[in-house]
Amino acid sequence: MAEWKNLDTLSAFQALKEKKDSVDLKAVMTGENGAKRVAKYSVPIGCGLTYNYAAKQVDDDVLAALADLAKEAELTEKYAELYNGAVINTGEKRLVLHQLARGQQGKDVIADGVNKRDFYVEQQNRANEFASKVHAGEITNAAGEKFTTVVQIGIGGSDLGPRALYLALENWAKANNTLKMEAKFISNVDPDDAAAVLASIDVAHAIFILVSKSGTTLETLTNESFVKDALTNLGLNPADHMIAVTSETSPLAKNSGYLDAFYMDDYIGGRFSSSSAVGGAILSLAFGPDVFARILNGAAEADSVAKNEDILKNPAMLDALIGVYERNVLGYECSAVLPYSQALSRFPAHLQQADMESNGKSVNRFGEPVNYVTGPIIFGEPGTNGQHSFYQLLHQGTTIVPLQFIGFKDSQIGTDVVIEGSTSQKKLCANVVAQMIAFACGKDDENNNKKFDGGRPSSIIIGQQLTPESLGALLAHFENKIMFQGFLWNVNSFDQEGVQLGKLLAKRVLAHDTDGALKALSDLFEI
Amino acid sequence: MAEWKNLDTLSAFQALKEKKDSVDLKAVMTGENGAKRVAKYSVPIGCGLTYNYAAKQVDDDVLAALADLAKEAELTEKYAELYNGAVINTGEKRLVLHQLARGQQGKDVIADGVNKRDFYVEQQNRANEFASKVHAGEITNAAGEKFTTVVQIGIGGSDLGPRALYLALENWAKANNTLKMEAKFISNVDPDDAAAVLASIDVAHAIFILVSKSGTTLETLTNESFVKDALTNLGLNPADHMIAVTSETSPLAKNSGYLDAFYMDDYIGGRFSSSSAVGGAILSLAFGPDVFARILNGAAEADSVAKNEDILKNPAMLDALIGVYERNVLGYECSAVLPYSQALSRFPAHLQQADMESNGKSVNRFGEPVNYVTGPIIFGEPGTNGQHSFYQLLHQGTTIVPLQFIGFKDSQIGTDVVIEGSTSQKKLCANVVAQMIAFACGKDDENNNKKFDGGRPSSIIIGQQLTPESLGALLAHFENKIMFQGFLWNVNSFDQEGVQLGKLLAKRVLAHDTDGALKALSDLFEI
Repeated sequence: MAEWKNLDTLSAFQALKEKKDSVDLKAVMTGENGAKRVAKYSVPIGCGLTYNYAAKQVDDDVLAALADLAKEAELTEKYAELYNGAVINTGEKRLVLHQLARGQQGKDVIADGVNKRDFYVEQQNRANEFASKVHAGEITNAAGEKFTTVVQIGIGGSDLGPRALYLALENWAKANNTLKMEAKFISNVDPDDAAAVLASIDVAHAIFILVSKSGTTLETLTNESFVKDALTNLGLNPADHMIAVTSETSPLAKNSGYLDAFYMDDYIGGRFSSSSAVGGAILSLAFGPDVFARILNGAAEADSVAKNEDILKNPAMLDALIGVYERNVLGYECSAVLPYSQALSRFPAHLQQADMESNGKSVNRFGEPVNYVTGPIIFGEPGTNGQHSFYQLLHQGTTIVPLQFIGFKDSQIGTDVVIEGSTSQKKLCANVVAQMIAFACGKDDENNNKKFDGGRPSSIIIGQQLTPESLGALLAHFENKIMFQGFLWNVNSFDQEGVQLGKLLAKRVLAHDTDGALKALSDLFEI
Repeated sequence: MAEWKNLDTLSAFQALKEKKDSVDLKAVMTGENGAKRVAKYSVPIGCGLTYNYAAKQVDDDVLAALADLAKEAELTEKYAELYNGAVINTGEKRLVLHQLARGQQGKDVIADGVNKRDFYVEQQNRANEFASKVHAGEITNAAGEKFTTVVQIGIGGSDLGPRALYLALENWAKANNTLKMEAKFISNVDPDDAAAVLASIDVAHAIFILVSKSGTTLETLTNESFVKDALTNLGLNPADHMIAVTSETSPLAKNSGYLDAFYMDDYIGGRFSSSSAVGGAILSLAFGPDVFARILNGAAEADSVAKNEDILKNPAMLDALIGVYERNVLGYECSAVLPYSQALSRFPAHLQQADMESNGKSVNRFGEPVNYVTGPIIFGEPGTNGQHSFYQLLHQGTTIVPLQFIGFKDSQIGTDVVIEGSTSQKKLCANVVAQMIAFACGKDDENNNKKFDGGRPSSIIIGQQLTPESLGALLAHFENKIMFQGFLWNVNSFDQEGVQLGKLLAKRVLAHDTDGALKALSDLFEI
């Protein structure tokens, strides 16, 4: 059994602190030494993706200290305990099994009297079968017409991950003739969200997926009613248009109000649930079951790479360690995710949840306050757009933000244009490469206003093309990075008690059970 | 003439530093005192919007210190110099006239031999006339058919602001029968961006607006070629489908390749250009000239309020001062923008540019390095979505992030549903109110994992409904806040030298004029 210790009690962490500012990024990235770093500081993630950390503030000496930290923190052992079915989510006393939904990394995991891998595969198969019948016209609307659109009703992890993955592959699917149905998403309790989505689709040919583990999420149930009203107003029976993704014990399970239900369990948290039926139902309906299976295979490949004890062969663990070095030794508070791929436009929003909700904690696994900073602020937008926006601050502001670039050699659709001797795709790639060097090396100038200090760290994940496999590997890389960082900070990355108080107070506002400032603010809104 | 001094040379700033942590937010927001603060700490922005700062870490004593700072920094005088036509953009030696595009706050501004207000109004009138002719079917495609879609081709300020404003009013316009044409945006040099947008529209009935001040922005010209190829492939003449928004001296001006051109000048920076033809052409085409005029009127009203010398009657100045207090005295590095309005889904991305590109600087107006931190990291997503995502860190993480909430009493579309005794809109409002109190007051618990420390500051902007006027006022509020913060930090908020180095290096990559790490990275992408 691994020992769970606070980061600041580990002697390897104390040794790491001695390495602060030991690497002059500008110096090491300049000249031929820089080229050597690019070649050397590179590690495969799986599915053709590579994590390159040449432009991070590390050298062999820092990496050796990080390897010591990984060993003392028993990262590999903790990951093994997790995928072998230990109660890693100590707050809620639950197993953590999102990796198991896409592959078996260790022993059989038996919980609630069943083999959990079998359970996840069974639900996938059921969702696949359902999707295939919809595509084949065997499951239709009441008029016997094919469904053409699928709409996910969910919020948080039931929305951000599946939405990011759908957008990531929508154009790829069109280009590869595998877009079976257009997908839409309703998430916000703002009534204008549901109203606008419903106005943009052919409701009579839409199938709606209600996603709520407990079957009690207020936003989601409210939006379900909104949709049911719309169906009823068109003379349609909601039960003919709705399926549920929920737990087996929820009121939505085995309920005649739904065409069918696909099950999730307590061992996969919302923000890690894209690999479960939460992502599986909609992505199988949108792209076909084969495409969803390819995403899972890609994720499983990265999960397997993450088992490596050697941090130089384990990109998720290495990324996690460098992140902790940046956060707890170098003192950086934020991290930006910058995909040079329009298809990944909502991937930063998904990672924002995955990371900030997992590691935005102030107490350790045992409920004791920690004496160090934990999860950073995550934000990001696609490049090159961001270059014409907030990059000014990243280059010349007073705050250093470590950057995570992502780029692909090939576009998804393949249509392109040659201007000034290069395609748009080459320009896109040239820009991400140029930015890395601009941030690392800077540029001197007599005019301080045109001077770039450099020394601003980044890493990049490079792939051939954003495909189902590489997308799955990308998703798993970040999930595993977040998991390893949680191990290092000794926090429980798998609960989210911080969302409870707001819910409680909102209920009080709606019940008019308020006083003081809460009542005064409610009055301003005439609630 | 106002004197331009560094923040740390002002005696009022030294006095403000003495006030650090003088307000216990949790204590002052609890009980009836909290209700009093909500009533008292409130100031009109214009167009029915109110800025409420009850949940900020201020009291009358801190506010008095902020008033002293405003006076010593001569904020009102500097704003007056700006709108009266001084060369405020010292780096590029330019006037700063975005407010003049929506109203006259001071004297006539004569530059380049013309009255600039007349120039902006003339361009608006020309764009209005053009839009009206398109709507009336007097300007059509070559087949004599009406244009139904308008597509903006631009990046950075030519994209984020206009896109955020379009999305903010799209549903309002539908509900008020004033959506004349659907708008789309092509920005990224990623060829999949243009390809996907073109695949989603009826190209034969689309009008494209090429937006580039210099007429040389590589991304934009590349995407223009992409679009021209698509038009040509359909047997259409690009010149029948394209207009330009550019400077009078650019190669795009008076060019037979465009149906018409509307002009901007060097005195309105990209991120402030939504009020110019950059926003005007597309928004007038999408919503009609009257709606765009209403946006400008709303902005002008807020601009006028921002002239008030009394900080308690000047929300933009007050917001700026509190922000500097939070950044330079309390030490917070980030700020989150959280609109409880799905229509404002891209407004945080626009503010991210407006703020971070303006004030992400390390040198003062005279090119001297400053010894204090400047612009914060800005990020955000709409509520209630964010509540199910990154709010965990905001509530219980180790980093305190000041929050800017935005909320409206009424939805835009008006369709709603009652669940558990309340509409979705009431639930939305109840949530934002509940969050403010949860962040400020926290909650004790024997279990540390369920404990909320509170003391996390926020402000809120409240309106009746998101309309053209209130949207204009909202936009101007933040633009003016950013301007005042630039004055306080003594930076030039109106240039962006930090974007240059990346452009330069990207050109070298495309020309294969590289060595060292830049060449090694380029080789990884096979450029």
